[in-house]
Amino acid sequence: MWKTTIRPAFSDLDAFVHVNNCRLPVWFELGREPFFELFTPDLDENIVNMPLIVARITVDYLAQMVFGHDVTVQTYVKKIGRTSITVHQEAYQRGKLSAKGECVMVHFDYDAEKAAPIPPDIAEKMRKHLIDPDNPNLKPRSGRFPAAG
Amino acid sequence: MWKTTIRPAFSDLDAFVHVNNCRLPVWFELGREPFFELFTPDLDENIVNMPLIVARITVDYLAQMVFGHDVTVQTYVKKIGRTSITVHQEAYQRGKLSAKGECVMVHFDYDAEKAAPIPPDIAEKMRKHLIDPDNPNLKPRSGRFPAAG
Amino acid sequence: MWKTTIRPAFSDLDAFVHVNNCRLPVWFELGREPFFELFTPDLDENIVNMPLIVARITVDYLAQMVFGHDVTVQTYVKKIGRTSITVHQEAYQRGKLSAKGECVMVHFDYDAEKAAPIPPDIAEKMRKHLIDPDNPNLKPRSGRFPAAG
Amino acid sequence: MWKTTIRPAFSDLDAFVHVNNCRLPVWFELGREPFFELFTPDLDENIVNMPLIVARITVDYLAQMVFGHDVTVQTYVKKIGRTSITVHQEAYQRGKLSAKGECVMVHFDYDAEKAAPIPPDIAEKMRKHLIDPDNPNLKPRSGRFPAAG
Repeated sequence: MWKTTIRPAFSDLDAFVHVNNCRLPVWFELGREPFFELFTPDLDENIVNMPLIVARITVDYLAQMVFGHDVTVQTYVKKIGRTSITVHQEAYQRGKLSAKGECVMVHFDYDAEKAAPIPPDIAEKMRKHLIDPDNPNLKPRSGRFPAAG
Repeated sequence: MWKTTIRPAFSDLDAFVHVNNCRLPVWFELGREPFFELFTPDLDENIVNMPLIVARITVDYLAQMVFGHDVTVQTYVKKIGRTSITVHQEAYQRGKLSAKGECVMVHFDYDAEKAAPIPPDIAEKMRKHLIDPDNPNLKPRSGRFPAAG
Repeated sequence: MWKTTIRPAFSDLDAFVHVNNCRLPVWFELGREPFFELFTPDLDENIVNMPLIVARITVDYLAQMVFGHDVTVQTYVKKIGRTSITVHQEAYQRGKLSAKGECVMVHFDYDAEKAAPIPPDIAEKMRKHLIDPDNPNLKPRSGRFPAAG
Repeated sequence: MWKTTIRPAFSDLDAFVHVNNCRLPVWFELGREPFFELFTPDLDENIVNMPLIVARITVDYLAQMVFGHDVTVQTYVKKIGRTSITVHQEAYQRGKLSAKGECVMVHFDYDAEKAAPIPPDIAEKMRKHLIDPDNPNLKPRSGRFPAAG
């Protein structure tokens, strides 16, 4: 599991005085930076060669997030496929799970213009970050919908 | 179905020279503005009272989007629940379906702090925008993942 | 003068229920797209070769902007230098001047890594968009500061 | 002087593979959070009552900023007026001054709808953060324009 700490900006709030829902995909993308590093050393020079593309995101909004308190994003590997990685992510503020999400990233070969197998050595490194299959946040949420601005 | 036209900004691009994946939730939120108007007349004065909160979003990235061409977002009602609405959205650029997504919005009673039934007259108006159940984009995508920046 | 119309998004608002001040630089950048086109035809393919870089921006916030009403950005050429262009921009909502700004863009030669002279034919085209020197918005604002979120 | 550390996100980059110029106003706003706290204790509850509004911003772009390295924003008080505060800010990456800016904030009385005097006790606290008048970054930049994406 990787941890990323984010300071909500004033401009991240919306008219409901909570963090706008559209900021979560940005924060979860920040939390996936360790994957970029696994595939592409020297990111500052080589970020354009980073071979992961986003195929799908899902975000569940579980509680309002406010200004003035850091948000911690926890990022886990949920599944390592042949050419894709499914990531599970959780955002906490003041100790409370406030959003969770999944992201499917595809390892892409830009020259061949198609998905490419994930190198075994990188898969091995990612396996150390596999989520505990009993993590209760992996379950779909119940029918009760909490608030999200 | 509602249509919204969006002009990609230079700052919407990322290092892959395509629209960054995190912009789609913003554009789909722009496409859901007609729901805000159904629930809250005079949005400019009353936006803080708008009673819809976002419980869940999903975005599937199907093709790269580029600078210099308008994007059209089409927004459909997929399901009207007792207290929630499921929305289906499609983003087209140069005639090509480039992203699709779902959003669950909950009708929320801020005083009672819980979900509230959707008023029948608003449900009636939304029914005119129900998606054709044969719309092929309702199906989950196939296993082949196309590119998304 | 060029005109660009922008629909404020819900996520453009901040906790003061007005458009967040940080959105104006994005909207003014949208308004400068005609300059990109003057220097780089076929922007969708060639945007990475667009040779204008931003050296300086200034924004004066004159009135609050709200949700639910389009914003019109008017973009003028203020000054054409040897290697730089100074742009004057105005944002109107409901007919009221709500923000104004300047931007200095430099014509840059990426190979030589230095500023490059503006081609005479492009300068000629830009001259058609020179601001009237009597435009009252060119003056520095008075000491009274109006509101900006 | 206050310091704020920012991790550039992948979505902060633009097609030039550098941090987009429009992100700087957001980062400088993050750097001004200590002012919010001076005027409004318990920001998480009371952010809507925070009485500072932005009247003007200026940003000078001095060097490209890249992915993969933290950015440090240094925030100084330049001038304390009767009702306004002028702030000077500097953004460093890898030890290099990459952008600098000014912001005029006005202390606003929302009920009276006009600017209000800055309370002496808050002015006193701010005075500890006054910029050294010999700080070389206070000078207007020279005529040579460096690159900014």
